[in-house]
Amino acid sequence: MRISVRLSTPKDMPQVLRLIKELAAFEKETNSVEITETNLIKEGFGKNAIFTCFVAEVNNLIVGMALVYDRFSTWKGRSIHLEDLVVNADLRGKGIGKALYAEVIQYAVNRNVKRLEWVVLDWNKNAIDFYESSGAKLLKDWHLVQMDENRMKKYLKKNNKF
Amino acid sequence: MRISVRLSTPKDMPQVLRLIKELAAFEKETNSVEITETNLIKEGFGKNAIFTCFVAEVNNLIVGMALVYDRFSTWKGRSIHLEDLVVNADLRGKGIGKALYAEVIQYAVNRNVKRLEWVVLDWNKNAIDFYESSGAKLLKDWHLVQMDENRMKKYLKKNNKF
Repeated sequence: MRISVRLSTPKDMPQVLRLIKELAAFEKETNSVEITETNLIKEGFGKNAIFTCFVAEVNNLIVGMALVYDRFSTWKGRSIHLEDLVVNADLRGKGIGKALYAEVIQYAVNRNVKRLEWVVLDWNKNAIDFYESSGAKLLKDWHLVQMDENRMKKYLKKNNKF
Repeated sequence: MRISVRLSTPKDMPQVLRLIKELAAFEKETNSVEITETNLIKEGFGKNAIFTCFVAEVNNLIVGMALVYDRFSTWKGRSIHLEDLVVNADLRGKGIGKALYAEVIQYAVNRNVKRLEWVVLDWNKNAIDFYESSGAKLLKDWHLVQMDENRMKKYLKKNNKF
């Protein structure tokens, strides 16, 4: 099986969206996906692109993707965030994920950043084992905090702004 | 005490760096700060600026700062990350942090993003209580994962790339 990894193009976004939804289903968050192909094309390409997406192909079919973007650490400077790395459920364990992972690490090294980072669900043992065996470090003493649109607007109303 | 919040300028970066170091010391990570004023000026201003920084002033002195940048969620689209929110240790509890927090939320709402997010150390009870009382949601089932430069290069060497 020949796996090839390349940068995505706008035409790949339907397949990328399919993989985003596949990962969300695995993470039991199917209903959280609000993004559309149009959003992906708008935000990932052109002058104001915010993300870079790689796709993995086997026999010219997209079977995996990895999506990254720049972040900024006030300790380390510019860093890269790996938002999603997904492989078709029926093709796992064949090296496709590893090919994408190596591509992302190569991209981060080429970009000369001090850090590559991402998040993982605490029950996703397979992923955690893989990340740790690859030399990545798990930080278990931080919590994520989020405010969605409604919570933000509610806060501003209560606090006499907006 | 009159608190005013404004966008930072390159000239504020020495004070911003002082506050970054103050927060790192509080988080017991003093030695983790590798960033310099030059990095901050390079990455925060001009055409390729990656972050936006607000400063809080009392009597024309900088006493706090909040630093944000754009991220991209494959579920929600463009979002804003609050990297640091710091107030001079001797001026906490006077509403400076709240003024910065409201400014950041207003900024996120103005930018029409679906999500504002950040991280907090699990032992920082004061911060967690404040965030929760403000309506933010804590996600405790995710771990952060990181690879620094050395780990990345090591991985690539082992895997016959780089």
